[in-house]
Amino acid sequence: MNDMKQNECCYQEVLRTLFRVLKPMSSEMIGLEDGLGRVSSASVTASFPRPLFDESVRDGYVIAETTGHGESVQRYRITGEIPAGSPYGKVLGAGTGCRIMTGGCVPEGGSRVIPHEDCREVDGDILVEKKKLSWNIYIRRKGADISEGDVLVGRGILLQAGHLAHLASCGVQKIDVATLPVVGFFCTGSELRHMNERDLENGQKISSNSLLLRGLLDSIGIPCQDFGIIPDNRQSLLDCFLAAKKSNVDVLISTGGMGPGKYDLVEKLFLEAGGNLIFTELGMRPGKSVLFGTLGKTLFFGLPGPPYAVQTLFNLLVVPVVFSLQGLKEQLPRKTTAYLEHDIPVKRSDLLCFKDGVLELRDGKCYVRLADRDESPNCYIMLSAGQLFFKKGEMVEICLA
Amino acid sequence: MNDMKQNECCYQEVLRTLFRVLKPMSSEMIGLEDGLGRVSSASVTASFPRPLFDESVRDGYVIAETTGHGESVQRYRITGEIPAGSPYGKVLGAGTGCRIMTGGCVPEGGSRVIPHEDCREVDGDILVEKKKLSWNIYIRRKGADISEGDVLVGRGILLQAGHLAHLASCGVQKIDVATLPVVGFFCTGSELRHMNERDLENGQKISSNSLLLRGLLDSIGIPCQDFGIIPDNRQSLLDCFLAAKKSNVDVLISTGGMGPGKYDLVEKLFLEAGGNLIFTELGMRPGKSVLFGTLGKTLFFGLPGPPYAVQTLFNLLVVPVVFSLQGLKEQLPRKTTAYLEHDIPVKRSDLLCFKDGVLELRDGKCYVRLADRDESPNCYIMLSAGQLFFKKGEMVEICLA
Repeated sequence: MNDMKQNECCYQEVLRTLFRVLKPMSSEMIGLEDGLGRVSSASVTASFPRPLFDESVRDGYVIAETTGHGESVQRYRITGEIPAGSPYGKVLGAGTGCRIMTGGCVPEGGSRVIPHEDCREVDGDILVEKKKLSWNIYIRRKGADISEGDVLVGRGILLQAGHLAHLASCGVQKIDVATLPVVGFFCTGSELRHMNERDLENGQKISSNSLLLRGLLDSIGIPCQDFGIIPDNRQSLLDCFLAAKKSNVDVLISTGGMGPGKYDLVEKLFLEAGGNLIFTELGMRPGKSVLFGTLGKTLFFGLPGPPYAVQTLFNLLVVPVVFSLQGLKEQLPRKTTAYLEHDIPVKRSDLLCFKDGVLELRDGKCYVRLADRDESPNCYIMLSAGQLFFKKGEMVEICLA
Repeated sequence: MNDMKQNECCYQEVLRTLFRVLKPMSSEMIGLEDGLGRVSSASVTASFPRPLFDESVRDGYVIAETTGHGESVQRYRITGEIPAGSPYGKVLGAGTGCRIMTGGCVPEGGSRVIPHEDCREVDGDILVEKKKLSWNIYIRRKGADISEGDVLVGRGILLQAGHLAHLASCGVQKIDVATLPVVGFFCTGSELRHMNERDLENGQKISSNSLLLRGLLDSIGIPCQDFGIIPDNRQSLLDCFLAAKKSNVDVLISTGGMGPGKYDLVEKLFLEAGGNLIFTELGMRPGKSVLFGTLGKTLFFGLPGPPYAVQTLFNLLVVPVVFSLQGLKEQLPRKTTAYLEHDIPVKRSDLLCFKDGVLELRDGKCYVRLADRDESPNCYIMLSAGQLFFKKGEMVEICLA
């Protein structure tokens, strides 16, 4: 509660607070082959140039050009063959040439490659018309793409397959990346049962949030630790908070137990376990009942129970934090605007409201509609406070999921 | 070569051919907890309704309403407490009530929940003004969301975390999904060396395509088998094709060895290994030199060597096939249109040309620009044949990566 007044905080302010509180992960050196989905914590430079040698870009003949002959057809003696991977090993003498393949190493003395289709091979000689000798020499010079020491990938970039291949091609074998944060979670509620339980008694429910959080974390490549289903009693909750505090999780998420009710104990036990609250509600829906604070070195999110709220708040609050912890340069979530596909009436307009949306791109424009119940949202529609009716065709802000 | 004339095939035609040739994967029953990223091969129905019982949606009191009293304030005797997960176990008598929590099970006889804020507790009684008894009874009836047997997720859907939670909440424990295809790959070229090799000799290169393909496959959750780096000689290539044919890979990809050169042996050895060619070039760039065919039960893609072409053709050809094999209902790649951010001149306009693009959404519109070299493309700009200059602001088709 130290630096935000309740009900006054809007979403941007909340994100700023989160980013201010978190302490970036340390970095570690890993093999490039393990780099997919990791965030670079230093810029990466080329260990060697690309290409690494003067390289033929066509199948044909490399020649050591002679000048001043004046004949309309030039003739070069073929002295060998250079397949890719096998250099010639000596200097190409003036007036001679070699068969060469795409990717083959142009020998010293070689001044030009003549593609197959631009010449003829006759009696061990290459015959080429002078007019075929264009400006294009079909040689990619050593370092033409990239020089040794060039920055290949900056700091704070989420590494994808293409980045890794790009780095490998310039001799990079190890990279400095942010350590992956570990996210722990638990679901509170005496009514909750594990999804594989067969016979539910009256009043019991499947804890679908456990599966939801594990899936959401898996989807973004973040390792997780499931602290289980915790019944609504003081001791179980306190034990869980203390176990999480002792563990090495960087972020802890709880679901449920957030109401004003007698069995809604999460806030109390978080404080008893030594937690430091930073905010207890946000000026938005879902989010009116959300805890955020620190428990030792762990960042804690107390989320409400309904799965749609868990998923929305995970994407709007936890994902930005998890990537910011890793030093991602781009700030999440990505926001943009889109045209509403249909009217959306709102019951209460006191707070900013996030709705599950589906963004569709058509005819160069962005359209957004409410997601169906069985549909995965790909964005959240931000319905601003103070407006009770949003009209088809109106432009609204959205956060990409 | 059996059903497409060379140079005549456009991209859509190519995709149609691919989809016609492939045989869908079989299906398997797996635990819901393993379902992330899998494609449903049958529609999934609810094992039980949601909610599973009449459920209070507020913290407050459940009452068995009495009628006809006429007093402005009604009084109900409190006879117990119903936390979530602990049903009352008996019928609630008329004129009595129970404390109940959000998610608590409304007992037989309970006709309405009165939220805390709408009543007072005095001497073990609940006092409620009659005018507070609104139309809203704050009870979510058994099956109000979902009835037993309702279809929760259709066939051919890529399962995400939200789907899994939705299924779990309705008692689904196992799901029928398409078996994951296994994709094998090898990179040809006598000049190629493994990325961890320290000292390259003149003319040698790092095989960055191995890392690229592994990363691209990892990114879409597809298991892969690396058949290694294969030098440009007949026996090594033949052995590799035969090993792949004997293995259980569903799709096989090669890179390199596709030119007209003497050491470009992929097509020849594919045929010698018993392969059946379906096309050998596409009317597009990259793609002018691509093999596609079948080798026993394996689908084979012979891709060219340059990594940008490998990545583009992987996204444009292999990804659609890999998901179509799994019966994904949505056909990939997703196509849309966007406004060019800058002019793009083209050197040759004889063929449809795909360029690495970055799609950006701004002010409700889709803008696309060429990707920088160190940037991961998120789409491919389709520059249609017959046009040498594409103007800033012009609308172009794009395929999302």
